[in-house]
Amino acid sequence: MADFLNTAPYRGTRDFLPEEMSVRLQVFETLYRVIETFGFQRYDGPILEPVEVYEAKSGVELAEKQLYQLTDKAGRRLALRPEMTPSVARMIAANAGRLHFPVRWYSHPNCHRYEKPQRGRVREHWQINVDIFGSESVEAEVEIFELIHAMLGALGAPRSAYELRVNDRVLMLGALAHHAGVPPEAQKGVLSVLDRWEKVPEETSRGQLGALGLAAAQIDKVAGLTRLDLDGFLALLPGEEARTSPVLRILREGLLEAPLAFNPLIVRGLDYYTSTVFEVFDVSPENRRSIFGGGRYDNLTELFSKQRIPGIGFGMGDVTLFDFLGSHGLLPAPDVAPQVLVLCQEEALRSAARAIAAALRAAGLRVVTPLEAAGLGKELKRASQRGIRFAVIVGKDEEARGAAALRDLLRSEQREVARGDLAAAIQAALGRR
Amino acid sequence: MADFLNTAPYRGTRDFLPEEMSVRLQVFETLYRVIETFGFQRYDGPILEPVEVYEAKSGVELAEKQLYQLTDKAGRRLALRPEMTPSVARMIAANAGRLHFPVRWYSHPNCHRYEKPQRGRVREHWQINVDIFGSESVEAEVEIFELIHAMLGALGAPRSAYELRVNDRVLMLGALAHHAGVPPEAQKGVLSVLDRWEKVPEETSRGQLGALGLAAAQIDKVAGLTRLDLDGFLALLPGEEARTSPVLRILREGLLEAPLAFNPLIVRGLDYYTSTVFEVFDVSPENRRSIFGGGRYDNLTELFSKQRIPGIGFGMGDVTLFDFLGSHGLLPAPDVAPQVLVLCQEEALRSAARAIAAALRAAGLRVVTPLEAAGLGKELKRASQRGIRFAVIVGKDEEARGAAALRDLLRSEQREVARGDLAAAIQAALGRR
Repeated sequence: MADFLNTAPYRGTRDFLPEEMSVRLQVFETLYRVIETFGFQRYDGPILEPVEVYEAKSGVELAEKQLYQLTDKAGRRLALRPEMTPSVARMIAANAGRLHFPVRWYSHPNCHRYEKPQRGRVREHWQINVDIFGSESVEAEVEIFELIHAMLGALGAPRSAYELRVNDRVLMLGALAHHAGVPPEAQKGVLSVLDRWEKVPEETSRGQLGALGLAAAQIDKVAGLTRLDLDGFLALLPGEEARTSPVLRILREGLLEAPLAFNPLIVRGLDYYTSTVFEVFDVSPENRRSIFGGGRYDNLTELFSKQRIPGIGFGMGDVTLFDFLGSHGLLPAPDVAPQVLVLCQEEALRSAARAIAAALRAAGLRVVTPLEAAGLGKELKRASQRGIRFAVIVGKDEEARGAAALRDLLRSEQREVARGDLAAAIQAALGRR
Repeated sequence: MADFLNTAPYRGTRDFLPEEMSVRLQVFETLYRVIETFGFQRYDGPILEPVEVYEAKSGVELAEKQLYQLTDKAGRRLALRPEMTPSVARMIAANAGRLHFPVRWYSHPNCHRYEKPQRGRVREHWQINVDIFGSESVEAEVEIFELIHAMLGALGAPRSAYELRVNDRVLMLGALAHHAGVPPEAQKGVLSVLDRWEKVPEETSRGQLGALGLAAAQIDKVAGLTRLDLDGFLALLPGEEARTSPVLRILREGLLEAPLAFNPLIVRGLDYYTSTVFEVFDVSPENRRSIFGGGRYDNLTELFSKQRIPGIGFGMGDVTLFDFLGSHGLLPAPDVAPQVLVLCQEEALRSAARAIAAALRAAGLRVVTPLEAAGLGKELKRASQRGIRFAVIVGKDEEARGAAALRDLLRSEQREVARGDLAAAIQAALGRR
């Protein structure tokens, strides 16, 4: 065949070879464990969802520009899910009658967005999604923030490595209305400009605000809002909103022991957030960017049922998380090589070798046996090259004594070990129980 | 809003609520562990692949009728992968220069086929894929078969619950040519008829063979082949093929200790298999059907490079596997409820309660704290309903003694336990270390 197909994965998607997959699995299994200790239960759902779900609530940019869409033979318009929150809202609405609220759920789906691939951005990424449904209590915010600190802590990140930034869209919209006179119909557009404020020159943002119909004086006031600290912000607001805002209560009543930074530029890009919004920022000089974020969305289940079920949660994507871990030297080493090669010195011992391999596997060790016939020396050399630490060599004399030769390929040491003691000897040397 | 969106998942796809997800995770985590003890390394790849990959090698039915296709804005024709083997062949071809062959890889992707949903068949399923690349040795077959028995054994399936059926396409094509005079251009079609032989009336199959151009006498001979046992089959074949066939060597030389059944009706539906083909059948009367299967495919990497890298492997889908496990009573119970509720009797003890919750989480327990303010009795009742086994109640007196009340909600027993001993006391009662 003359023309070969391209071996590269589709643009913006990734192959995970075993070494890369091992790193990914180690990081995410650590996160699964932490999330489960907070009582969250894992769920999953289909990658295909009706397009309408995203058109209704996710925002124009996502639904119109970034969705991978297809139409099935029955004429159903489907999308590869670009995010998980609408799917989980659908599942919660479908099962609300038999769930015990508050519900703590998490998932780890792959999500697709049609974007120009660049640092921190791909077309298919793997995202941990964590949500609490059915609670309006500020304790839900506290728990989500505690969980975020616990997750990052379990990955080895010191609190100095990142900042948890919060805001409240109710406060922000109140300040935009009362202080800058932004009319309701321009609010969504202004939030979208604020969401990108730090990523573009201020003149660009000011131009966009002008295009939304704001006058020069209003634009100055919006720009002024972006520079306010908490006290300055509160001075602009009527009392009621500030008293009931969950993030303000946390900040002023000290409900969270870990640090939390008020930041008026945190508004998030998705339309469905209704109050609390937050982002975790990497503070290292070489990767100053948002790692992940989330917020409170009190009206998302109304797409699917008349029952109002408030939710709060976040999505943590693998690409930005791994950039963060990499920039702080926190990525684990791959751990994929087999641990033991079991060989026999002659064909008649094959069945004995197979029994030893089975026993070592039953003890949880990663064990290979040769597939192709090759000399002992060649096999041992190959095993070393592949990073295999031990060889068990089944020879006639040792077999007669109920034993085998255990060779440490790293230290080039060899000794005879009774068959029943092989697993324990290898595990001890590997530093495991 | 008057019109609600449908809460059902897209036709032929499934939501996995936590109870269902827990069963799925337990089964597949058991399989991951077994597969890894055989030295297989996990990889992953994108769900989107170029359509051409499937058009070239997977067979007409799959490529033309069952592919979910879309075209991106750059005009690339993409498919949701219907199976993993072409993707892994692509990855192996791309990285052949730096891999140590033989390579043992596995993955657990979701795959999509546009089919009419029915028992054992959905549109999105989760499939364990296991492959060995770079070995033509019969030992590769032996290892794959041993692994299959080990996987099913680890799930609790006795060998009497299923049958591992094997065939060799080389032998089958030889018998079709030499015994029934089937011309080369009709071979693919005849294999396809044989693949469905047991699922349709024999008259239907005979009609299809006639449509492929076979005469009545040839059709009788093909029908005769389907009823032959191993000896009868061998009597029809020239010697060379029978001597070198891996499955025949295993059967005749006794290379595998576990049972293996020759069956001329095992041919598999995918075009790319070149010799060994196999299927695992459920033998229970209420679910007599194929659970999963695989085979040897020596020419699949030729799509991507001139290097010939033989492969052998199988894909084990969740739907048929779970039907099998269910029909034999082997599905594990869901395990998702939090294990501990930590409560405080007054607001001033909240921080003490939080510290206890953190310590229990650090010990690996699944711990929740209340989000909404409610009375102690109501909280305990709710916890019981949700299946939470223990409550730790932080009261003023106990706290002063460095202790808390530990309540077993299942047995309605309560005792005071020193804070430092809580985790161990709970774990002991849960029967864990």
